[in-house]
Amino acid sequence: MTARKKTAPKKSARKKSAAKARVKATKTKKKATRKKAAKKKAAKKKIAKKKPTKKKPAKARASELSVFFFGGGQADGNRDMKVLLGGKGANLAEMVNIGIPVPPGFTISTEVCARFNELGGELPDEVRAAIGQSVARVEQLMGTGFGDPHDPLLLSVRSGARASMPGMMDTVLNLGLNDETVSGLVQQADSRFAYDSYRRLIQMYADVVLGVSIKRFENRLRDVKEARRIELDTELSADDLRGLVSDFLEIVEEDTGSPFPQDPFEQLWGSVSAVFGSWENERAKKYRRLNRIPADWGTAVNVQAMVYGNMGEGCATGVAFTRDPATGENHFYGEYLQNAQGEDVVAGIRTPQPINEASRRKGTMGMPTLEGEMPEAYDELVGIYQKLEESYRDMQDIEFTIQRGTLWMLQTRTGKRTAQAAVRIAVDMVKEGLIDQAEAVMRVEAGSLDQLLHPTLDPKAERHVLAQGLPASPGAAVGNVVFSAEEAEVRSKAGEKVLLVRIETSPEDIGGMNVAEGILTARGGMTSHAAVVARGMGKCCVSGCAALEIDYHAGTIRVGGAVIREGETITIDGSSGEVMRGEIPTLTPELGGRFGEFMEWADRFRELEVRTNADTPQDARVARDFGAQGIGLCRTEHMFFEPNRILAVREMILARSPEERKGPLERLLHMQRDDFEGIFRVMENRPVTIRLLDPPLHEFLPSDEEAIRDVAHALNKEVAQVRATLEAIREVNPMLGHRGCRLGVTFPEIYRMQVRAISEAACKLDQEGIAVKPEILIPLVGHRGELERLRAQVEEVIADVKKTQYPQTRVRPTIGTMIEVPRAALTADVIARHADFFSFGTNDLTQMAYALSRDDAGKFLPEYIALGILQDDPFVSIDEEGVGQLVQMGVEKGRRSKPEITMGVCGEHGGDPKSIRFFSRVGVDYVSCSPYRVPVARLAAAQAALEKRASRSS
Amino acid sequence: MTARKKTAPKKSARKKSAAKARVKATKTKKKATRKKAAKKKAAKKKIAKKKPTKKKPAKARASELSVFFFGGGQADGNRDMKVLLGGKGANLAEMVNIGIPVPPGFTISTEVCARFNELGGELPDEVRAAIGQSVARVEQLMGTGFGDPHDPLLLSVRSGARASMPGMMDTVLNLGLNDETVSGLVQQADSRFAYDSYRRLIQMYADVVLGVSIKRFENRLRDVKEARRIELDTELSADDLRGLVSDFLEIVEEDTGSPFPQDPFEQLWGSVSAVFGSWENERAKKYRRLNRIPADWGTAVNVQAMVYGNMGEGCATGVAFTRDPATGENHFYGEYLQNAQGEDVVAGIRTPQPINEASRRKGTMGMPTLEGEMPEAYDELVGIYQKLEESYRDMQDIEFTIQRGTLWMLQTRTGKRTAQAAVRIAVDMVKEGLIDQAEAVMRVEAGSLDQLLHPTLDPKAERHVLAQGLPASPGAAVGNVVFSAEEAEVRSKAGEKVLLVRIETSPEDIGGMNVAEGILTARGGMTSHAAVVARGMGKCCVSGCAALEIDYHAGTIRVGGAVIREGETITIDGSSGEVMRGEIPTLTPELGGRFGEFMEWADRFRELEVRTNADTPQDARVARDFGAQGIGLCRTEHMFFEPNRILAVREMILARSPEERKGPLERLLHMQRDDFEGIFRVMENRPVTIRLLDPPLHEFLPSDEEAIRDVAHALNKEVAQVRATLEAIREVNPMLGHRGCRLGVTFPEIYRMQVRAISEAACKLDQEGIAVKPEILIPLVGHRGELERLRAQVEEVIADVKKTQYPQTRVRPTIGTMIEVPRAALTADVIARHADFFSFGTNDLTQMAYALSRDDAGKFLPEYIALGILQDDPFVSIDEEGVGQLVQMGVEKGRRSKPEITMGVCGEHGGDPKSIRFFSRVGVDYVSCSPYRVPVARLAAAQAALEKRASRSS
Repeated sequence: MTARKKTAPKKSARKKSAAKARVKATKTKKKATRKKAAKKKAAKKKIAKKKPTKKKPAKARASELSVFFFGGGQADGNRDMKVLLGGKGANLAEMVNIGIPVPPGFTISTEVCARFNELGGELPDEVRAAIGQSVARVEQLMGTGFGDPHDPLLLSVRSGARASMPGMMDTVLNLGLNDETVSGLVQQADSRFAYDSYRRLIQMYADVVLGVSIKRFENRLRDVKEARRIELDTELSADDLRGLVSDFLEIVEEDTGSPFPQDPFEQLWGSVSAVFGSWENERAKKYRRLNRIPADWGTAVNVQAMVYGNMGEGCATGVAFTRDPATGENHFYGEYLQNAQGEDVVAGIRTPQPINEASRRKGTMGMPTLEGEMPEAYDELVGIYQKLEESYRDMQDIEFTIQRGTLWMLQTRTGKRTAQAAVRIAVDMVKEGLIDQAEAVMRVEAGSLDQLLHPTLDPKAERHVLAQGLPASPGAAVGNVVFSAEEAEVRSKAGEKVLLVRIETSPEDIGGMNVAEGILTARGGMTSHAAVVARGMGKCCVSGCAALEIDYHAGTIRVGGAVIREGETITIDGSSGEVMRGEIPTLTPELGGRFGEFMEWADRFRELEVRTNADTPQDARVARDFGAQGIGLCRTEHMFFEPNRILAVREMILARSPEERKGPLERLLHMQRDDFEGIFRVMENRPVTIRLLDPPLHEFLPSDEEAIRDVAHALNKEVAQVRATLEAIREVNPMLGHRGCRLGVTFPEIYRMQVRAISEAACKLDQEGIAVKPEILIPLVGHRGELERLRAQVEEVIADVKKTQYPQTRVRPTIGTMIEVPRAALTADVIARHADFFSFGTNDLTQMAYALSRDDAGKFLPEYIALGILQDDPFVSIDEEGVGQLVQMGVEKGRRSKPEITMGVCGEHGGDPKSIRFFSRVGVDYVSCSPYRVPVARLAAAQAALEKRASRSS
Repeated sequence: MTARKKTAPKKSARKKSAAKARVKATKTKKKATRKKAAKKKAAKKKIAKKKPTKKKPAKARASELSVFFFGGGQADGNRDMKVLLGGKGANLAEMVNIGIPVPPGFTISTEVCARFNELGGELPDEVRAAIGQSVARVEQLMGTGFGDPHDPLLLSVRSGARASMPGMMDTVLNLGLNDETVSGLVQQADSRFAYDSYRRLIQMYADVVLGVSIKRFENRLRDVKEARRIELDTELSADDLRGLVSDFLEIVEEDTGSPFPQDPFEQLWGSVSAVFGSWENERAKKYRRLNRIPADWGTAVNVQAMVYGNMGEGCATGVAFTRDPATGENHFYGEYLQNAQGEDVVAGIRTPQPINEASRRKGTMGMPTLEGEMPEAYDELVGIYQKLEESYRDMQDIEFTIQRGTLWMLQTRTGKRTAQAAVRIAVDMVKEGLIDQAEAVMRVEAGSLDQLLHPTLDPKAERHVLAQGLPASPGAAVGNVVFSAEEAEVRSKAGEKVLLVRIETSPEDIGGMNVAEGILTARGGMTSHAAVVARGMGKCCVSGCAALEIDYHAGTIRVGGAVIREGETITIDGSSGEVMRGEIPTLTPELGGRFGEFMEWADRFRELEVRTNADTPQDARVARDFGAQGIGLCRTEHMFFEPNRILAVREMILARSPEERKGPLERLLHMQRDDFEGIFRVMENRPVTIRLLDPPLHEFLPSDEEAIRDVAHALNKEVAQVRATLEAIREVNPMLGHRGCRLGVTFPEIYRMQVRAISEAACKLDQEGIAVKPEILIPLVGHRGELERLRAQVEEVIADVKKTQYPQTRVRPTIGTMIEVPRAALTADVIARHADFFSFGTNDLTQMAYALSRDDAGKFLPEYIALGILQDDPFVSIDEEGVGQLVQMGVEKGRRSKPEITMGVCGEHGGDPKSIRFFSRVGVDYVSCSPYRVPVARLAAAQAALEKRASRSS
């Protein structure tokens, strides 16, 4: 081993050589800045072109190099080579390229990972050779020697995959220490530091490389601390640590039968191999499966000279963000610890100090700042962060270490941020000329907007969490506990803010849910009745909070040891699923200003129209204010559940002949007409798609004996008759039963009433001069014949209304069909001949294509996802591989036979960004989603359009 | 009108000219026979080639002629021109061509029908001209004149479409009669006959052409009969009829404002137009829709000289079959009436006489025969029938009229026959050298074989029908009424023949159904539990017999006024749905002889393998004897319902942990192993596909309170626990719920037990030297991940059994999946990678693709079919347009990714001939059906192969 034979430079030389390395590091600075500027220009011109041009250099060099050096002001790689170098390696190279001080080192490429596995866990010889050469270059730059007993070079070995996989793979630090070199380190630093470093190396190496159980080391450490009656590791003396080192070495030898390797290169081969090997450990594999990271990507390995923020005086370590990650404000924000290691900042044992005044928070008011304590290093850091932001054109999350006054950058990466910060940063960067509007639109994760549209709990407020349920519908709500929908309505009318708490909800609770601030249930998943309805209402909901023992009779919730009584105030957080006692202050969303501007930009790029699913004028108004361009789905049956209507509906169902059905239908006609009038008025001049009655009739009848008796009494019928009707219309598989257009065929008078209500409402407004665009949607069509027949019926009623009541009207309702039955998608060509538009009901399409009842899937779907059989819940993001084929087929076949047909999606997928990208690709005209998802859909649609543009131009 | 200007030939000339016409008719006889022989040879060589060569002459001449003459020994058309001339016209032309005496006339082609409609109901001028010329030729041949007052030519105008549409379109007879010519007919025949003919013309013409209500004529006729106190039309005198004629003429004038047209050509134009027009009447349109006859086929119109079998002495009319249509025996069979019109034979007012000794039946023993009474005409008829059979090479159904000693043939067509006759005729004709085996195989309707495989009621026995239900499973059964499955088993063990009568059946009745002679239910359709299970068992079943009021408690069935008590004997006919009191004698099927030979021929042509769905060794044996080549679907859960097992199954379900589940699973393992051993033994060396547990677990638990208590008691559990489990596993949509492979994922120990039972049974028999081919089928797979996971589990168990118990075994089970979830068909390419075979479950595929629950469809499916929204029940014949696409996709994608994969169909469609043709076209390897459908499937598969061959060579 050549390194060991080197003679040690003098003590003072170390600092000098480190300085030299740093000087070298800045050499190519100017050149790099020029390059960057050119690149930025190109990027502004055509964002889309960036990707392919970026990849080229990486590919061209891939065959030449397996080890990429960085340091001394130049690097073999750059930031566009993530495929080959992983994220960490590419960014380290980039920093070197733009003249930022980084401890020198090298990245062993992801291609080596593949070869390493092919060889059964062996490093190829030429890679070993290249590593050896690179170590020599690091020695040269650092002025130390790997294995030099006087001034040893110490190395870190870290994984670095293309996608971030935090904590999934292994790391080994302080390589190069052994019984001999440790005394060199004693000379360079002090003996406490040296033996502590050696102890850590032994423990990590034994764990990661040798597979020795960490327990034995921990136990030994605990014994020593107990004997010494101390609490913290930092209280251990140099002697204690020296003793621990010899104990640890013993443990390794006992456990493995061989002594701890003293040869630094043996340590290096072992560590590099272990890190490559950790790509295939169970933890990493599971993480990849869950995050859809392909196994063949492999990881890169970064080997780097160690620098220390815990070498005493003039040492520090910290993390910072180039802008405020919580608010997005354009100021440098960060925390640091003096004389500490990187882990200590994150671990939270010591409270970190703010790096500057702008970074002060409640708990850190009196503390000194880096700016004040180490002004030179701070100034340098400011220069670096500005350079990084200019170069990356995005907010960066950086890690730094100051070793005895010298600043070293350890990492830079794009920083995570809140939705609010994301919008602000994107808008500000456009104004600063860093990025263009298209790039700004791509910078905000569409799904995250949800956070901005609902009230949120003040992050500064304390919260004592009582229980945790499912985050079923986002937002925060504070209210007094009520246990029934009726009670909710009564108290709400009296001006009280209530929170409806139920074991589970049913359609009869709609009224109460509507007036409540939020909904909390003990049972039911993310797709339970409470969850779905609450999301539709844009109302906060926590569902399936199993820890709650709700006793309606006693009027109490028992949870843990606590009891909450009816009327007590609680707070729920629908974004986290948390349930808290008392009132926690909330923050109201601010939708104007930067947010409004940002959404305008999004709309400029968007190709898909965004409509909303709304059943009431109130919902329609909310959605319109959120930018909905129409109603894509108005579910008439939701109106049927209102307390003053359900009786008429029930009377209609219990009628034994079309004759008996007339009375209740007449009453419903008046009510529905008023509803539609209200909705048309709000949505003036925008399309309003109204779906005719869809659910099976038994959903409108009560199920328990008492309710049956009430209904019988109210309608003046025999209890036995009500029960018999209920029995007769009960179904084995209601999802596949007598519902949708099948009701329209067998009870034509119901659809006639609905179409009459729509037509009369539309014509009346038209007469008032209000433009209306009604679209009549026929559900559950599976066969052309159904649509053909019902379309004729619908047209007949419209014609009759016009002829007899409004001969002058300009109203021209269009007639379309849901595509929600697989067969409808398969035969979309023949169905299209009878339809003005298609509305894809992707919820039901998923249920049927997958043979997956949403109501029943709770018994196995979670296990499927846990086992990795399915990656996603197909009700959240559309299953592109399967159900998506049906959508695509429906679009293509429908357009082939009727090019002018309009296509939309009205399932809940219409508000899911991933699904929206898919719908945009297959070419639908609009998506429709619940009111509170409208901004999310608008942004997702804009991003989809930009992606399409990018893929077209590539 | 040239015809009217003709001078009348003398009275005696009429007979002479008729004879001349007949002489001319036989002129080309020899030539025709030669032609035929040549054709037959060609046909034998390659049946498939017949169609296209046949059509050519028709097409070639289509542009030249619109009116095709026949008579005088030659015809413009021939029998291959059905497209242009309709069935009737083509066969009339053919008879003339082969020298058979046919009243001369002409056929106006189907192309004229299209032009007629294009012109808004006008006959093109050139067609009128051609008709005029043709009438002149008929006059010449008949020696009479159209409108000749002395010896008028009378014409009939009849429709004749490509496909038979009996009674759907109009007919006008006796055209050419008017106030003048009627006296000519008086001279030729007698005045009673003449005025009766004129009266009929007026009535028919007024009805068909002028649209006068037939009521007025009928009322007038009734008045006259009442005044004369007579019952029958035949009792009316010549004077009565003359009076009626003048009354009828008055009615026409009153009703239409114009007198009855006296011009014969006006009558002819009117009639031809009316018959063409009747193609578009509502009745015809509905018939076409139901029978899928395209509207653009149009009808031809046949105009022909009238001949009369009711002109007195030497006159007769009859219908005959060239072979016995009931038994297929090779003898001439027919009935006739002396001095009568064709309608009279069919109408049944007079009992027809047998034409010969072989045609005698019980009621016609003493009657004279045509052979005895009119030997010359009979001999001539025999000559003609032989010629027709030789020419058509199939059994013919013929109509003839003898007018004053002269024989005229009015119609020939392929005769309808029973299944038994069809097989016999086909086999005999092969032996007689008339047809080849391939043609014989095509001659028997595959579905009709069902009639042959079950006992049938003796057609000669009297039956008094008590009630009519649905013909749910064919055959006939006689037995003593029992009302419960338990009672059925008890009595059956005691040697009694029982008939199980239930309001409806459930899986718990399986045992009783198995021992009963037949099953009768008051509720449930063709796809109810009783119907499906009975068909599977090949057992006679009448379902949905709503007229029965079954009182289990009283032990009675009330039906109409009658009461049937438990233990009384009844008979049911599962082919007609009839329920009868007492014992009706039945006939046992004869499956050897000609049937056996016929099926052997079918097997020679067949490409599809035919397997069976069988769950027990008994079923397997029946199916094997019917020719099944393996088991395509063995439903393990059917075994679970047996009384001695269900308790173990319930214990398994009620277990709260895998640990508790061990005991019952161990017991089930032993039982299932024995089952599989039995089945493997019967199916030696044939593939046996065993499906792992499929239905949701709640199907195995009782639902009523008493049964719940019994189960709790038997298993020593709390009633509350049983009820709670039941509640917990109950589902909203069980069809889309926790079933199939989802059970395999969440309760791996159940599938493990089943795979162990299969493997141990197979290995044991293999050790005994019996070849076994187990195929393990995983149900309800929708996602590749499910199959991947379960396949690994299955392989693990098999490997374990082999390693620990049978290291020497040659058993190599294959592992495949059901394709029954739409998504599985859509992603068949990725699923195929983990499957050795696909088994298409077209029942479930239909339910899901159509969103149509079989259990619930009864509420609207019948209405859909009645309204014509659907043509067929998609559970009977596969919906090729929609569900069929998924099958095709599954086959194509599966084969693309794994060419060697085996594909089968195991839904009930596997026994439906129309569906089998489809499966054959898309290229599956086998179909599997219930044991009693195996011969049907074998024949249908053979026909499908022959059709494929034909379409390939065309």
